[in-house]
Amino acid sequence: MNSFLPSEKVSSQFLFEKFADLWIQKFGELSDDPLSVSGPSPSLVFISKTNDLTQALQSESAKTIIIDAKLVGATTSTTKTIFATRNIRQVMAQVLPYFDGKFSRWHNQAPLQTSKFTMGKGVTISQGCVISEGVVIGNNVVLAPYVVLEKNCSVGDNSYLHPFVVIGENCQVGQNCEIYSHSVIGSGGFGFSTESQVHKKIAQVGRVVIEDDVVISALCTIDRATLSETRIGRGTKLDSHSHVAHNCSIGPNAIMAAGFMMAGSCHIGSNFTAAGAVVMQDHVRVGDNVIIGGRSAVTRDTLKSGAYTGYPLEPFDDGLRTLANLRNLTNMRKQIAKITKFLKLDQEKPDEL
Amino acid sequence: MNSFLPSEKVSSQFLFEKFADLWIQKFGELSDDPLSVSGPSPSLVFISKTNDLTQALQSESAKTIIIDAKLVGATTSTTKTIFATRNIRQVMAQVLPYFDGKFSRWHNQAPLQTSKFTMGKGVTISQGCVISEGVVIGNNVVLAPYVVLEKNCSVGDNSYLHPFVVIGENCQVGQNCEIYSHSVIGSGGFGFSTESQVHKKIAQVGRVVIEDDVVISALCTIDRATLSETRIGRGTKLDSHSHVAHNCSIGPNAIMAAGFMMAGSCHIGSNFTAAGAVVMQDHVRVGDNVIIGGRSAVTRDTLKSGAYTGYPLEPFDDGLRTLANLRNLTNMRKQIAKITKFLKLDQEKPDEL
Amino acid sequence: MNSFLPSEKVSSQFLFEKFADLWIQKFGELSDDPLSVSGPSPSLVFISKTNDLTQALQSESAKTIIIDAKLVGATTSTTKTIFATRNIRQVMAQVLPYFDGKFSRWHNQAPLQTSKFTMGKGVTISQGCVISEGVVIGNNVVLAPYVVLEKNCSVGDNSYLHPFVVIGENCQVGQNCEIYSHSVIGSGGFGFSTESQVHKKIAQVGRVVIEDDVVISALCTIDRATLSETRIGRGTKLDSHSHVAHNCSIGPNAIMAAGFMMAGSCHIGSNFTAAGAVVMQDHVRVGDNVIIGGRSAVTRDTLKSGAYTGYPLEPFDDGLRTLANLRNLTNMRKQIAKITKFLKLDQEKPDEL
Repeated sequence: MNSFLPSEKVSSQFLFEKFADLWIQKFGELSDDPLSVSGPSPSLVFISKTNDLTQALQSESAKTIIIDAKLVGATTSTTKTIFATRNIRQVMAQVLPYFDGKFSRWHNQAPLQTSKFTMGKGVTISQGCVISEGVVIGNNVVLAPYVVLEKNCSVGDNSYLHPFVVIGENCQVGQNCEIYSHSVIGSGGFGFSTESQVHKKIAQVGRVVIEDDVVISALCTIDRATLSETRIGRGTKLDSHSHVAHNCSIGPNAIMAAGFMMAGSCHIGSNFTAAGAVVMQDHVRVGDNVIIGGRSAVTRDTLKSGAYTGYPLEPFDDGLRTLANLRNLTNMRKQIAKITKFLKLDQEKPDEL
Repeated sequence: MNSFLPSEKVSSQFLFEKFADLWIQKFGELSDDPLSVSGPSPSLVFISKTNDLTQALQSESAKTIIIDAKLVGATTSTTKTIFATRNIRQVMAQVLPYFDGKFSRWHNQAPLQTSKFTMGKGVTISQGCVISEGVVIGNNVVLAPYVVLEKNCSVGDNSYLHPFVVIGENCQVGQNCEIYSHSVIGSGGFGFSTESQVHKKIAQVGRVVIEDDVVISALCTIDRATLSETRIGRGTKLDSHSHVAHNCSIGPNAIMAAGFMMAGSCHIGSNFTAAGAVVMQDHVRVGDNVIIGGRSAVTRDTLKSGAYTGYPLEPFDDGLRTLANLRNLTNMRKQIAKITKFLKLDQEKPDEL
Repeated sequence: MNSFLPSEKVSSQFLFEKFADLWIQKFGELSDDPLSVSGPSPSLVFISKTNDLTQALQSESAKTIIIDAKLVGATTSTTKTIFATRNIRQVMAQVLPYFDGKFSRWHNQAPLQTSKFTMGKGVTISQGCVISEGVVIGNNVVLAPYVVLEKNCSVGDNSYLHPFVVIGENCQVGQNCEIYSHSVIGSGGFGFSTESQVHKKIAQVGRVVIEDDVVISALCTIDRATLSETRIGRGTKLDSHSHVAHNCSIGPNAIMAAGFMMAGSCHIGSNFTAAGAVVMQDHVRVGDNVIIGGRSAVTRDTLKSGAYTGYPLEPFDDGLRTLANLRNLTNMRKQIAKITKFLKLDQEKPDEL
């Protein structure tokens, strides 16, 4: 085992600069979930829980592992390359920029060169589109004016991208998709390492995968994952002004009305329905066949199929009853005051009540 | 009467392909409201209620009517061309794409050709603007860089469009309007026909009409109607991040603060005011001179003039009282527990309470 | 003293057209805060409170003062040029457009001319960027495709602007900043003068200042101030779909999750944290080291450091308790009904309760 516990202030930066140089030579997958890495290419895995470490140590492809210092004791007798740190998010903030293609993405561009990307038959490329190196465009795709396709992204057959849509580096859009104006697929997720009140951005180097038959309305953002992927399932429809944060997944055939906002690392099953302006807290799981009423907030796991509404979320009929009773709240308070007075309970010391 | 009840699975698609071919020759208005069609051109009307059917049968211009199969019995002795279907939304999903200009909207564009559109005096057209065939631009209009005007839209005298504004096909912007960056007028509304959990997009082929003296701030979406029009009344001001869904209308002189979101088919009267982050459920009607407090949700018809607030919405002072009493909710629960204990009601079986 | 009380309907428009002509010759600062103007250039100050007037009369640089008519009596024996009006917001709507560069901002542009703006070393300017006259770009700045830099704005060293970002006229972006796609810095604030139900836009001629090390995610709007500045403090991070209205300031090292919306003239101290979908009413002040839970609404000054949540806002633990008790509201109503019945209080006249 090759373990190392750097002083965060001095050596970790030096360590990772050297490390990233080497790594870039033999680039593999990046992940914070040891079950998600596979295949022959060597993968770099970030681990902060004992259970995840066990799995990472058994994984063939997790060649290099960065662990929380508290796990050092659990890493004996392994052939993996392991780095330990007292602050794993700070290390992510330091090391991930070396894997982020953003800084070499744009050049002072020559006119469009068709030799640098791949394109099917019957494609429309309108005025001012930017098609970067390594892009793959399927048959019959329509790119309206000023669509920007960043490096190595792909757009499947028959998909239609409206004006000013941005598809980020390495992101995938499936077949028969439609994305409306100004939507941004694969913007940088909102993840930071905070120390002494200073927030340092963790580069987001994962991707977004949009499966087939998806519709995304105007002015939506689907953020790329930190390391792995954000996924929008087949047939899903997302209305305008919606936001899907990094590392989320949404099962097939979901439909979400306008203003849907989903914080990071949420997972939603099949056939989800959300009325307008629903928000979800981060790291929440939702099961299959769940319906959420308008203006609701989903703040905890909601695995059982069925309809729910409100904030806090309740089964639909209970939520409607709570809402109806809110109109009665002032009257309820008056009734309690009356009862208290009638029973002379209001003559006790106030802290008794 | 020329009535026909196809098997939805097989013949309706064939039927409507043939039908749309013929229809395109003699293109008229499309509507789902028989009172809205008029004039000499033949109109196609979708009807699912008996009452609407009566009006459609009496309308001169409703030449062709697609009805719900349950209304077939009510269509005897008429000269109209009538098609019946067991699933009218599914038929809309099938037939409306034939009327949707989207698929022929963009071409590999030659440089701007002034012969294809009409323009008044004193117009500024900045770098990279896209002005499509049939566009009409009034006097003294300013188009900032990268404004996209889709086919047959119009912009009235003295209006100012900031960078990256998109005006959709057939949409109208009045005189003295200002639309800020990245706002999208006439994006496709969010309407689907759902069968066996699969959502199929209903093409949105109506338009948006923005009357004179309207201001729309940055990053707003006003969706085009399914068939007829979405209308923003004269003098209305809409703040950033607002959303007006398909088939809505907003009366003159409304003012809505940021984050206003309005689901489909809502109608608002004159002199409406909404503070920030107000949402409206679909198909809700609001009367004249209504004021809505911040963070409110309008979920039912609110026709009487006056001020309202909250979710659920209450008259303004009642809503403020409810809000104030919410801070007292934990104390109220304690008081009820104390009274219950004092009266020994807590010694009964729990299901009694 | 040179005081003048015009009839609003007739003479004030004439007055201010003449006035603005003169003013433009010797252009100084504009302000509605007499303490904010300084330096040798003559400043125009709008005053509606007695206290502000006292300060303005003592200020060296406040050469010209427009006051509310009710303050005329307090302006004796001064060498200032003073205009009085019965409706100061209406006068702002009339006079400020003469100071608004918007109408001369865009021209039928020639290709990019590097002589008109200033640029450091190592700058990337991608396809289609618009760089207006007087712009200052620091070293190593990256402008992705179609970034629009309006007149006299500046972007500091090492900052990165993603596709379709707009930086408005006179706005400043600091060093090491990152602004994601479609965000609009310096859009016109949402301020109107309303008379007889007609809302007339007050031109917003202030600016936005973004300090160093700020990250602004995709699809955000930061509106320019009416007269002075909107300021985003050093190190602050703002997630997607957020809105900062005119005249706001946010202290250093704030972090706000997606959908944060802040109405005009709010001020936030250092180290602020907001979870998702938080909204703030206008003219609210927040102290240092404040944390706000998700979906909360900040409707009054919250100066004491600490964590808060809910709408209405409560200290965090109280807010969680209120939320938990909401699920008990229906049961509470049943309990009150039971107690009332038990005590035979329900047999009194209903208006007694």
